[in-house]
Amino acid sequence: MIDSFMFLMDVIGTVAFAISGAMAAICKEMDIFGVNILALTTATGGGILRDILIGRIPPLMFRTPIYAMTALATANVVFVVLYIRKKRGRKARAGAYERILFWIDTLGLAAFTVEGTIAGAGALGGTGLFLMSFAGVITGVGGGVMRDVMAQELPSIFVKRIYACAALAGAVTVAILSYYIDQKQAMIIGFVLIIVIRCLAAHFRWNLPRITQ
Amino acid sequence: MIDSFMFLMDVIGTVAFAISGAMAAICKEMDIFGVNILALTTATGGGILRDILIGRIPPLMFRTPIYAMTALATANVVFVVLYIRKKRGRKARAGAYERILFWIDTLGLAAFTVEGTIAGAGALGGTGLFLMSFAGVITGVGGGVMRDVMAQELPSIFVKRIYACAALAGAVTVAILSYYIDQKQAMIIGFVLIIVIRCLAAHFRWNLPRITQ
Amino acid sequence: MIDSFMFLMDVIGTVAFAISGAMAAICKEMDIFGVNILALTTATGGGILRDILIGRIPPLMFRTPIYAMTALATANVVFVVLYIRKKRGRKARAGAYERILFWIDTLGLAAFTVEGTIAGAGALGGTGLFLMSFAGVITGVGGGVMRDVMAQELPSIFVKRIYACAALAGAVTVAILSYYIDQKQAMIIGFVLIIVIRCLAAHFRWNLPRITQ
Repeated sequence: MIDSFMFLMDVIGTVAFAISGAMAAICKEMDIFGVNILALTTATGGGILRDILIGRIPPLMFRTPIYAMTALATANVVFVVLYIRKKRGRKARAGAYERILFWIDTLGLAAFTVEGTIAGAGALGGTGLFLMSFAGVITGVGGGVMRDVMAQELPSIFVKRIYACAALAGAVTVAILSYYIDQKQAMIIGFVLIIVIRCLAAHFRWNLPRITQ
Repeated sequence: MIDSFMFLMDVIGTVAFAISGAMAAICKEMDIFGVNILALTTATGGGILRDILIGRIPPLMFRTPIYAMTALATANVVFVVLYIRKKRGRKARAGAYERILFWIDTLGLAAFTVEGTIAGAGALGGTGLFLMSFAGVITGVGGGVMRDVMAQELPSIFVKRIYACAALAGAVTVAILSYYIDQKQAMIIGFVLIIVIRCLAAHFRWNLPRITQ
Repeated sequence: MIDSFMFLMDVIGTVAFAISGAMAAICKEMDIFGVNILALTTATGGGILRDILIGRIPPLMFRTPIYAMTALATANVVFVVLYIRKKRGRKARAGAYERILFWIDTLGLAAFTVEGTIAGAGALGGTGLFLMSFAGVITGVGGGVMRDVMAQELPSIFVKRIYACAALAGAVTVAILSYYIDQKQAMIIGFVLIIVIRCLAAHFRWNLPRITQ
C-alpha cells in the first residue's frame, strides 16, 4: 500500500516538474530536444541527488525507466500543445501561465518532498529526523535548482516566496509524524500542509525580510 | 584488448575535451590556472558524474592520475600555442576556430559516449539497456555541461544542433550491439555513427522544431 | 587529539564560508531564507562533494547536524548585524567589505583544504598522494564554486588571484608531510602555508599570465 502511494507521489512530482522544465526550455526558445533534456533534468534531478546522498546507487531513476519515460512523454505533450496553440495564433491571457506554473510547481514540490522524506528513512545511517528532513527538501527543490542553473536563471528557491520554506515545513512534519502514525497518513498531511502554506503565502503575499542596497 | 581500446577512447576524449575547456576559458580571458581548472573539469567531469551514478567510488579519475595529467598537459600546450600566436599578432581566419572546435567536440563526444556505455555495463544493478545508454550519454555530455555552467554559458547541449541527440543514438547502438557482437566492434560502430550523425547534421544544417516567441 | 583538531578546522571553515555565502546572498538582495540556503550551500557544499567522491555516504554533514546548525546560526547573525547597520544608516567604508571577505575566504579555504586532505586519506582506494590532494582542493573550493554557480557569478576560483593555486599547494604539502610527520602538525603547516601564499599574492598583486582578446 505504502509503495503504491509513494509511486503515486513520484508520478505526480515527475509530471509536474517535467511540465515546469519543458516550459522553462520553451521560454528560452530551445528546440524539442532541449525541451526534453530540461524536462528530464527537472523531473529526475532532485531524486537522483537524493539517491546519491543516501547511497541508493544506481539511483532509482536509472533502474526504473518508467520515471524517465513519464517525464519525456509529458515534455513532448507540452511541446506539441504549445506548438499548435502558437500556430493558431492563440495567446495566453496575461498571468495565465504564471498561475498554471504556480500550481504545477506547488504540486510537484509537495509530492517530491514528502516522498523524499520517507525515502530518506530507508538510508543507511539511520532514520534521524535531520537526515530525513534534508532528504525531503533536496528531493523537492533539487530538480528546480538544476533546471534554473542549466537555463541560466537565478534559482527560484532564492526568489520565489516561501518556496523552500514550505518544503522544509512539510519535510519536518512528515519526518516527525512518521514516528507516531502511519507513513501514508504522515505523507498526506505533509502534502496538504505544503500546498496550504504555498497558497497562503501567495494569497497574502507573505514576504520575508531582506536587505535592500 | 578491450581494456587498451577503452583506454584509447578515454585518452581521445580527455584530450579533445581538455582543448575545448581550455579554449572556453581563454575566450573568457581567464588566467593560466583558470584555463587548467576548466580544461580539467571539462575533460573529467562526465566520467566523474558517471562513476558516481554507477557507484564506482572513488571515481577512476581520482585513482589513476594519468587522465588528469593528460588533461592538464593538453591545456598548457593549448595556452602556450595561443599565447605565442597572439604575441606574433596572428589572427585566426574567420570561422577557423569554430571548425576546429566542432571536430574536437565531436571526437570527444564520440569517444566518451561509447566508453561510458560499456563502463555502465559494469555497474552494480545489472546491464540494462536503459542504464547503459544513460551512462553513455552522461559520460559524453556531462563534462561539457559542467564547462558551460561554470563559464556562465547556456549549456551547448541545448543550443548545438543534434549534439546530445547524436550521443543518445550512439549510446543506444553500442548498448544493443554489445549483446550480440564483440564489445570492441560495438564501440567502433557507435563511435563512427556519432561522428557521421554530427557531420550530416552540420552539413545539411538539420534543425529540430522550436517554438519562437 | 587529531579528531578534535579536525573538528576545529571544520568549524572555522564552516563559519567562514557561511559568512561568505550569506554576504553573497545579501548582495543579491535575497530574503533571509535565501541567505540561509546560500550560506548552508557554501559552508557544506565542498564537504558533501568530497564525501560523495570518497564514498562516505551519507555525507558527514547529513549525519551530524552540528555543521548545518553552525552555518545557519552564522548566516542569521550576519543578516541581523547588516540589517541593523543598514537601518542605522551606517555605510561600510570603501574596500572594508573586500578586506573582511578576503580574510574570511582565506581562513575558510585553508581550514577546509587541510581538513579535506586528511579526510581523503581515509577514503577507500588507498591513501595516494593524488587522491588526497584532490580531496583537499575539492573540499576547499567546492562550496565556493556552488555559491557562485547558484548566485549566477563566474566562479571566483577562475578570477581570484592565486585562490585554487594556494589550496593546491597546501593540499599537496599536507599530503606529503602526513607520510613523515604527525597529521596534526602537517595540517598546521598546510594551514599556515595557504594563508601566507594568499597574503603574499594579494600584497604583491601576483598575476598569472592570461591571453587578452
